[in-house]
Formats: sequence, structure tokens, C-alpha cells
Amino acid sequence: MTTVAAAQRPGRLMAAEIAEQPAAWRRLLVDGHAAGLDAAAALIRSRAPRTVLFVARGTSDHAALYAKYLTEIRLGLPAGLVSPSTMTAYGARPDLRDVLMIGISQSGGSPDLVHSLEVARAQGALTVAVTNNAASALARAAHAHVDVLAGAERSVAATKSYTAQLLALYLLLEQVRDGRDGGAGPAAALPDLGDALLARSAEIAAIAQRYRFAQRMITTARGYSYPTAREAALKLMETAYVSAQAFSGADLLHGPLALVDPQVPVLAVVAEGVGGAAMEHVLPRLAERRADVCCVGHPDAVARVAVGFSLPAGVPEALSPLLEIIPFQLLALHVAVDRGGDPDAPRGLSKITETL
Amino acid sequence: MTTVAAAQRPGRLMAAEIAEQPAAWRRLLVDGHAAGLDAAAALIRSRAPRTVLFVARGTSDHAALYAKYLTEIRLGLPAGLVSPSTMTAYGARPDLRDVLMIGISQSGGSPDLVHSLEVARAQGALTVAVTNNAASALARAAHAHVDVLAGAERSVAATKSYTAQLLALYLLLEQVRDGRDGGAGPAAALPDLGDALLARSAEIAAIAQRYRFAQRMITTARGYSYPTAREAALKLMETAYVSAQAFSGADLLHGPLALVDPQVPVLAVVAEGVGGAAMEHVLPRLAERRADVCCVGHPDAVARVAVGFSLPAGVPEALSPLLEIIPFQLLALHVAVDRGGDPDAPRGLSKITETL
Repeated sequence: MTTVAAAQRPGRLMAAEIAEQPAAWRRLLVDGHAAGLDAAAALIRSRAPRTVLFVARGTSDHAALYAKYLTEIRLGLPAGLVSPSTMTAYGARPDLRDVLMIGISQSGGSPDLVHSLEVARAQGALTVAVTNNAASALARAAHAHVDVLAGAERSVAATKSYTAQLLALYLLLEQVRDGRDGGAGPAAALPDLGDALLARSAEIAAIAQRYRFAQRMITTARGYSYPTAREAALKLMETAYVSAQAFSGADLLHGPLALVDPQVPVLAVVAEGVGGAAMEHVLPRLAERRADVCCVGHPDAVARVAVGFSLPAGVPEALSPLLEIIPFQLLALHVAVDRGGDPDAPRGLSKITETL
Repeated sequence: MTTVAAAQRPGRLMAAEIAEQPAAWRRLLVDGHAAGLDAAAALIRSRAPRTVLFVARGTSDHAALYAKYLTEIRLGLPAGLVSPSTMTAYGARPDLRDVLMIGISQSGGSPDLVHSLEVARAQGALTVAVTNNAASALARAAHAHVDVLAGAERSVAATKSYTAQLLALYLLLEQVRDGRDGGAGPAAALPDLGDALLARSAEIAAIAQRYRFAQRMITTARGYSYPTAREAALKLMETAYVSAQAFSGADLLHGPLALVDPQVPVLAVVAEGVGGAAMEHVLPRLAERRADVCCVGHPDAVARVAVGFSLPAGVPEALSPLLEIIPFQLLALHVAVDRGGDPDAPRGLSKITETL
């Protein structure tokens, strides 16, 4: 293959950016001060917010959902995801004193997020932007900015910016909790574990063959891994055009279970920890419906299904989402390319989505 | 057809309960005091919460999402949807002083919701339960209970309990806002408008023919109507086994638009008001993708697409969701029955879903 052909290979940008993830995490782990983590954490602690709200869209909304779990469980504060339209389209002006609002966006350029943060700031909220662009409008609109340091992302399908957002939010909220830069702590092991996962990409290429003709899929998980299920479904939708639906394992049992039959593959995340244990109630119900289940998770869970991908043992549950999403990113890439698509340029999409 | 055959007709319970909705609304409008609205509203006003959290699953979660819009826009308070697992499975014990937590459930029997409300109460929150069963565990766990007065619901697919939840939440939050029982106000017109919509069910039966063989669908809306899109998708999933995906019109443009092609029908809600106006940015993008769009909404929007169902004019946007969902309930019923299913007893489901 010539260099020119390689440069035009479908999905080359997405493949390269998936592979860059451990390097991006190392930057954030080594230089959290440059990323703005120290300043943002100190500001948040000084204001002692009573409630945390997140505003984001698309992939960044899944990072917000992850941070909502961290906030509720590890900070012990009530948290919510804002519907941007209430402050933009409807002109709501809620009383946001004692509220921390965190806006999350790869580009930092979406007008509705910028406007939401501006309104929140005027209504008394402490505002923090988490973006991949320190020069962005969202970064300027907030009291503090955290740069996820993922480097320029060129593929339309966000990958490295997503896990960099997860890590930045983890490090930020842990520093708010502890009141000090705890160093990387257990997160320090992530880059090497990520490299080891990426070295197993041939396993995912083989699994992708199974889904070559699947038009519908369901992804499911609970707890910290639920954002993984959501982001996995979005990657499959936007790159491979699969009608992929994500459900928390609990919500799946409230209705959507009825649409599961052997023709709708189910991709389940069953990580070590509380969320994975809660999935143990869900898997037997899927078996009753003779679902075709692929499990990404701990080896015991993977051993019980026909198709699976095992995650490394001993990773704290709150950090597992950084690793879990990698096999799904690779799966979306392979299914898309196998079907003749180009995940770097999905039909109908552009890199920055401007919603008002 | 004999009486026995009619009694066994697939979907007869769901059909009957859809038709009962205006009568259920009349009960709530006439006797809000008996429903507990006055007492709950007075208690909330006396405590003057700073933040409102909702906890619910399945259909009730869509009522919670509707109430979140009301809270943000009309009460001017920050609001969020709680992930029940954080307090149940993960044992989070957030500081919930100054917080109002509203638990919403048809049966009031789901253990995770009961536990969430108990924990919230112990952590300082004011708790209110909104259920269709005054004798339920959720009603007992809360400081105050609002009975949605929908009457016994026997079909597995929730219909009348959903719109009764919407109306109860609307009346409750308006009374919190105004500090008095404002009477039914603009809601008084809803039962007659509902009856008029139901009289047009033959229009929906005809539209259902178009989707006889559709395996995938997308529903979309913005603002107050977004919960309608979510609930419509759930009804189509649980009764007709369609892989129906709901997106806010804004989120649709952040990725999922790529999976839209002429083979994935799109059902759009375009009501009068701000949310419908915001959809005007979305419909041209769907047309670019040559999407097959069915529009439920105001006559101007319906006139621009091939298939549509017009809603009555002049309904305040905040009340439109009670009416909007009716054509989708009927659509799910007809598609399910046309395909040989029984929406009263979907495969794999039971009426009360117990999640832990």
C-alpha cells in the first residue's frame, strides 16, 4: 500500500486517535497544573457548592453522566444534567447561588453551551468549562477552564477527547474531594493498561465480523459503566449507522426488554464492582429472551457468554470507564469499515455541531 | 364478535385505558384536594427548596423529565434526575438539605425507588411521592403523597397513568409557584380536547399501516415535547418491538443523524411554542438525509410533510404533552396488533418491575 493510499484509508483518523488515548492520558497525569486542574479545584473548594449541574451534548454528555456518578457517590452532592434549551430557548433564569455548573465540550464552540454557561454565571453559579480548546468561547465564558489536553481531534467521531474528558473530570473531582493534588493515584496505571488493551485490537476485529449485518443493537450496563453503554451506542450509530440503543440494566427491565430477541444483539458491560454486580440480575433475564449477548467485562462474566472481551483485573470501578470504551470504539470502527463506510466522515455530520 | 371474543381481543386493555384518559384528568381537575395536591404544595412552599430532584424509572421517568422542564422554566429552580443506583447500590449519602426529592411511580412498589426516597429523607430532603396507589410503599415512605387518580391500570403498557402523572405534576408545581389552588386554569380544557383527539383514532389506524414492517424508528422533539418523544419510543418498543430511539432535536444533530436514511422512519413532535420552533432547525437536516418524516404537531408543520397528525391549536406549550402522546399510544397499539402481538401482555414483561 502506498503512502497516498494509506492516507485515504477509511477510518485512519479514528484509528489513529483511538491509539493515541494512553498518550493523552499521560499528558494529563503528568501536567495537571498546566491543564488548569489545580486552579479549578481550589476555586470549587473555596466556594463549597451545594449542587453540581452539568451541561453538554453528544459524546460530552456521556462524560457529564460519568461525572454525575462521581459527584453523587464520591463528593456526596446532588447532581443533575441540565437541558440546555431551558436557559437558551425558554429563557429560564433559575436561582443558581451555591451551584457549580460544569460545561463539557470537545470544541468548546457550541453556542447553546456557551449561552448556558453565561446565563448560569449571571444567575450566581460558579462555572467551570472542560474542553479540548483553551481558546474556545466556552473556556472564556467560565470562571475556570480545564484543558483535557487530548490534542487536535480530526475524526468526526470523538474518541480520545472522550476518555481525556473522563480523566480530567475524575482528577478534578478527586482533587475537590481531597483538597490537594493527590498525584495520579490509582489513575497512574491507566496508560499502560490502555496500551495493553489496544494491543488486543485483533480480538475486536474478529468480534466485528459477527455484527457485519446487524441493523439493530442494544448496549447495557449499570452505574459507572452506564455512560460507556451510552457512548458505545453513539459510536455505533454515528460511524456504522447501526440503530444502537443504550439502556441502564434496570431501565432495560422496565419495558425495552420486550424488544430483545435472538435477532437483536446485546452488548453488556460488566465491570468489577458494584455496577457489574448489579448487572447479575439483568443477564438471566436476557438469557430467558434467548438474547445474543457479548460481554465486555471481568473474566468471570465473559466466561458465561458466547462472545466477550475481558478487561484487566483490579481497576477501581470509578476508573474502569476509560478502559471499557476502547473495545467499543474499535468495534464501531471495524463494523463501519467492514460495511464500506468511512467513520472519519460519517454521512450528514460535521465536526462541530452548532445547536441553538 | 361475541363478548368473550371481545374480552380476549389483543390490546383491549390498552385501548380501554387510552380511552379513559380524559376521564382520569377530570377526576384530578375536580378533586385536587383529595389527590393530596393542596397538602403537598403547601408543604413544599413552607420548606422553600433550593433544588428539585426526581427519581423514577420507565414511563414514570418520562413524567419526571417533563416535571424537570416545568421546574427549571416555571419554578426557576435547578433540577435533576437521580440515578437510583447511586443511593441504593453504591450507598451514596449526599447532603440533601434544601432539596425536594419527588419519587414518581405508577405502582409505588419498586424497591429501588422506595429505598432512594428513604435515604433522601434521612439525608435531609423533603420527599414527595406521586403514584397511582395511595397504599403503596412509596406513598408511605414520603412526607407527602399525590395520588394521580388514574384508577387501576391493568395493561402492562402504561398509558392513562402517564398522562395522569403529567397532569398531577403540572398542577402540583403550578400550585407551588402560585401559592394557591388556581383551579384548573388552562388545564380545564384538556379533557374535552382529549376526547376530540380520541375520536380521530381512525387517522392513526391508517398511519399505522405505513409502519407495518418498520423494524427501526426515530422519535424526536425539543423542550416540553422531548418527554413525549421518549415515551413514544418506549411504547413502540415494549408493545410493537420496534427498535425506536428517541433524541432531542439538538442531540440528534450530534451524531445520530448519521443513521437516518429513507429506511428509518422519523416521528417528530412539533407543538406550538418554543420547543416546536426549535425543531424548525432540525426538519431541514432530516430532509437533506431524505428521511421519511411523520409530524405530530401544529397544522403548519404537518402540512410540510407527507404524513402527519395535527394537534388542536391554542394549547399552552407546557400542557401540550398530555395531548401529544395520545396519537403515539394509539400508533403503538395499532402497530402491535397489526403485527399479531398483544400489547396488554408484551413478551418478557410484567406490570410491576422490581429493580434493586
